[in-house]
Amino acid sequence: MEKYTKSMSKLIQSLKKMPGVGPKSAERMAFHVLRLPHSEAKSLAYSILKVKESIKFCRVCGNLSEEDTCNICDNPQRDKTIICIVEQPTDIISIEKSGAFKGLYHVLGGSLSPLDGVGPENLRIKELVARVRTQKVEEVIVATDSDSEGETTALYLSMLLKKEKINVTRIAYGLPMGSNLEYADQLTLAKALKGRNPI
Amino acid sequence: MEKYTKSMSKLIQSLKKMPGVGPKSAERMAFHVLRLPHSEAKSLAYSILKVKESIKFCRVCGNLSEEDTCNICDNPQRDKTIICIVEQPTDIISIEKSGAFKGLYHVLGGSLSPLDGVGPENLRIKELVARVRTQKVEEVIVATDSDSEGETTALYLSMLLKKEKINVTRIAYGLPMGSNLEYADQLTLAKALKGRNPI
Repeated sequence: MEKYTKSMSKLIQSLKKMPGVGPKSAERMAFHVLRLPHSEAKSLAYSILKVKESIKFCRVCGNLSEEDTCNICDNPQRDKTIICIVEQPTDIISIEKSGAFKGLYHVLGGSLSPLDGVGPENLRIKELVARVRTQKVEEVIVATDSDSEGETTALYLSMLLKKEKINVTRIAYGLPMGSNLEYADQLTLAKALKGRNPI
Repeated sequence: MEKYTKSMSKLIQSLKKMPGVGPKSAERMAFHVLRLPHSEAKSLAYSILKVKESIKFCRVCGNLSEEDTCNICDNPQRDKTIICIVEQPTDIISIEKSGAFKGLYHVLGGSLSPLDGVGPENLRIKELVARVRTQKVEEVIVATDSDSEGETTALYLSMLLKKEKINVTRIAYGLPMGSNLEYADQLTLAKALKGRNPI
């Protein structure tokens, strides 16, 4: 491409691989970088390297962390008797944003999927059972996705944890807030009806 | 923000400053960086630094370049008798993408704007006159923006260059291709009528 210099087209190529960034956005972002003060461009480049270097997984729950244990596990104000099970560290961020949960987490690292060769031994289930046995856990909330793999995983975990005499719950599925009954899909509507609560 | 690690929130902050990148996109991009192989993350960080370090302006036309002169000025296949005047290096990229111009460029670095204190001495006009005098230039196309500053600049340049006995032209303004007459604004329509051509 004659129209860009070599270093510009290399940057545009790299930026284009980002999720939701097309050729036009990548170009605009590259020009933004070009106009940035030297210090800010350096700080951006350094942040990218730093993220790759410094982030590891929490020894206890599997969340992203820069230390041996994450800042949720380390927080003395979190309720240690309740554990929320999620598939990925990104799910923790979504739940934290809601502000509705003050317990601890446990990241499985995926969901059971026999077709893809993912069995219980590939997920952090052994660690979960050990945690439940050694700590005073009263309730485990299973917040896996509502696809078939997530549902299977939830069922498997509930059977496993009930043997340990733990109260196992599943997050509620139903109509999203602010949604219109008319446009809800049948499966969600069926779930919402089945999961009805007294008012 | 407890939900991200320190290095993650720093990266998200930096990415959020990019044009067209909101908090949600910045988050997705940061997770993309986290999942990138080490080599690719390094290459992205390096590209950002490289762009800032290696890009300067072409000595002749003012285009972005990694060498002393840009690859358009260096290209022996470009028509050296015709110069297209633009405000910014990004305008060159747009024109190059159209593929309709095979001459050389001259970047002014802005447009005349007395209110903002930008006079002819603040733009690369002296260099343009010198170029026109020393090289065998037959035509100068003024492709400044069609806002009032761009129009003023075009008028000023045409008066200046006509003294040098140069053929000065302005790019055409009219209806965009594929557009609907019904939805055209009055100013554009007036321009289109005034600039009508025989068929």
